[in-house]
Amino acid sequence: MKSDLALMIPGPTPVPEAILEALSRPPIGHRSNEFKVVLQEVYAGLQWIFRTQRPVFLYTASGTGAMEASLINVLNHGDEVLVLSCGVFSHRWAEIAQELGLQVHLIEVPPGQSNTPEALETFLKGPQGQQIKAVCMIHNETSTGVLNPIQALAQTVKKHSDALVIVDTVTSLGATNFEFDAWGIDIAVSGSQKGFMIPPGLSFLAASEKAMAQHQQCAAPGHYFNFSKYEKVVEKGQTPYTPAVNLTFGMQKSLALLQEEGLEGIFQRHLKNQQMVRQAVKSMGLSLFVESDTLASPSVTSVLPPDGISVDAIRAGIKEQFNIVIANGQKNLTGKIFRIGHLGAIFPRDILTVVSCLEVVCHQLGYQKTPLGTAVAGAQGELL
Amino acid sequence: MKSDLALMIPGPTPVPEAILEALSRPPIGHRSNEFKVVLQEVYAGLQWIFRTQRPVFLYTASGTGAMEASLINVLNHGDEVLVLSCGVFSHRWAEIAQELGLQVHLIEVPPGQSNTPEALETFLKGPQGQQIKAVCMIHNETSTGVLNPIQALAQTVKKHSDALVIVDTVTSLGATNFEFDAWGIDIAVSGSQKGFMIPPGLSFLAASEKAMAQHQQCAAPGHYFNFSKYEKVVEKGQTPYTPAVNLTFGMQKSLALLQEEGLEGIFQRHLKNQQMVRQAVKSMGLSLFVESDTLASPSVTSVLPPDGISVDAIRAGIKEQFNIVIANGQKNLTGKIFRIGHLGAIFPRDILTVVSCLEVVCHQLGYQKTPLGTAVAGAQGELL
Repeated sequence: MKSDLALMIPGPTPVPEAILEALSRPPIGHRSNEFKVVLQEVYAGLQWIFRTQRPVFLYTASGTGAMEASLINVLNHGDEVLVLSCGVFSHRWAEIAQELGLQVHLIEVPPGQSNTPEALETFLKGPQGQQIKAVCMIHNETSTGVLNPIQALAQTVKKHSDALVIVDTVTSLGATNFEFDAWGIDIAVSGSQKGFMIPPGLSFLAASEKAMAQHQQCAAPGHYFNFSKYEKVVEKGQTPYTPAVNLTFGMQKSLALLQEEGLEGIFQRHLKNQQMVRQAVKSMGLSLFVESDTLASPSVTSVLPPDGISVDAIRAGIKEQFNIVIANGQKNLTGKIFRIGHLGAIFPRDILTVVSCLEVVCHQLGYQKTPLGTAVAGAQGELL
Repeated sequence: MKSDLALMIPGPTPVPEAILEALSRPPIGHRSNEFKVVLQEVYAGLQWIFRTQRPVFLYTASGTGAMEASLINVLNHGDEVLVLSCGVFSHRWAEIAQELGLQVHLIEVPPGQSNTPEALETFLKGPQGQQIKAVCMIHNETSTGVLNPIQALAQTVKKHSDALVIVDTVTSLGATNFEFDAWGIDIAVSGSQKGFMIPPGLSFLAASEKAMAQHQQCAAPGHYFNFSKYEKVVEKGQTPYTPAVNLTFGMQKSLALLQEEGLEGIFQRHLKNQQMVRQAVKSMGLSLFVESDTLASPSVTSVLPPDGISVDAIRAGIKEQFNIVIANGQKNLTGKIFRIGHLGAIFPRDILTVVSCLEVVCHQLGYQKTPLGTAVAGAQGELL
């Protein structure tokens, strides 16, 4: 017999019992008054967590769907966009934009680094800067574990351009502070299976007045993701098309749990998770892929394996012996780093567990630079 | 927000996801052919784990009900019974027997010790020995964390007396070896919320041919727990009265999981849990209530708190910070020991977690005799 699976990847994240119960209710009619109440609560909760007065749209689609929606609703074929890339997920903006027939400009940084306002400013002040209709960026780059300075990046765009600021907040929302209105964001997208602690299948999109105005100029905004259709029904507590009803029950419960904890509580918990993991890793003499505490993600921590020990062996050991899943690196980073997710319903107890298991497995695989208990002691120390 | 509750008490034990799913099925008719198949699997599984060819009865009642059934079915008012007591739960035999109008003789040992074949032999060879109709004992004394030498105790009874051997296996079955047939046990009782990993509400009773013969001489065996009524229907895949249908679904799944792991696997896992906890406790300089490894329970470990730190403070710290429940001592041992349950669906991962949390809390409460990580290192070391 095995322990039940523990997910410590950067999503899907573990689903708390209270949310599993909500997900397990028999579905109800999505046009019923009862469901209207559910949706109204969800819409209000989304505004709370996006920190916006704007309506937030609920898409039955994964985050990638909402990313596509961000572009097709406000841009026309041939429009120029700037993508700030710092890893696999931020680079996805460029891929989607290209497939949609947009002209893509790219600012890339090496993996493990964040995008900088300086590079952005240089580009925007350069010869191509004024053509840019939208700047796409990511708040938390899940593939490397880097947190981008979104507020500063958004300010830079506003200062030097009229472009829309479009942000992927898939793995940052519900983990760290994000302020849609105050930071002047035009479009932000997130997904259900991350900070919201429910299974994949829903995504959320906030659009500013400026984005909605630009949407009016859009020749082919499509049907299923069309902003206008969503905006029209949010106030009525509806969705334009059939939503994933049971995932919506889950969101209602999720938002209730998050509101009970409060934004500051949520952010502090994720920061504590991150600090515990980082201290454990350093204590046992391993290297963090993102050295700077300032750039470190609150949601996922990337670690370099010890010399001579493969990421596969570490992941397999932790999975087989303890039934905990941690993530490999992605694309070029596959086999170069492993990633410990600490996003959503993850608590200090879980961090103590995973670093304890990691330490055992590394020891078994021959890494004995520090005695057993050293990594855990690092994490424990953060709780005193 | 909090972690989901983690039970590390000696029952109820955590319920694995696969069993929760089984419990959540809509109930079916308990006289249906479909339920007959379920019951037949459960009956066969119970025989496997009791290690008996005898039918095992399924009572919709908690373990105490099955304890009462053990006595009322085979003894008559005024009969003499001997109770081997080594703690709260073994002493319960005496309380039930007295209330049923039986004459009770008691051999008691101080808490933390086991009953011995020597004391039993002395009694049975003594002047009152031959009057004894039944000797009641416990396999695993949950209140102290002591494992009794049941095989030797049963042999001693058989050698010196014609009395029935009646054993409470509530917290031993599914944790350590118990052999109903080979050890010559006459009646054994167990419950659902311990090694079987399902919620409370079912109990199980095996009765030998000798017990059934004595049952025929019993003037007032009652109705609901009456052996004859159960024996008659086991072969048909039935129960005499309406059983807790959904708990029976849970038992079916539980037994399937246990059989997949195999008896040896189950016993080794519990032994490993025990060794990890005991080594962690010793490593951090705390004292085990049961010093002898031989007597130590595979299901629960009792620990003395550090000087000057209360059991309540330790339990509260672990509950409030980590949402893990560990047990207090019971009756006279309340506040003197705390007990860590490691029975049922508990795995090395859980032990690493609980000792890690225990260490943090003791440290916070001022116990800093050993550095952080020391207890965990003790537990980790058992996994190499």
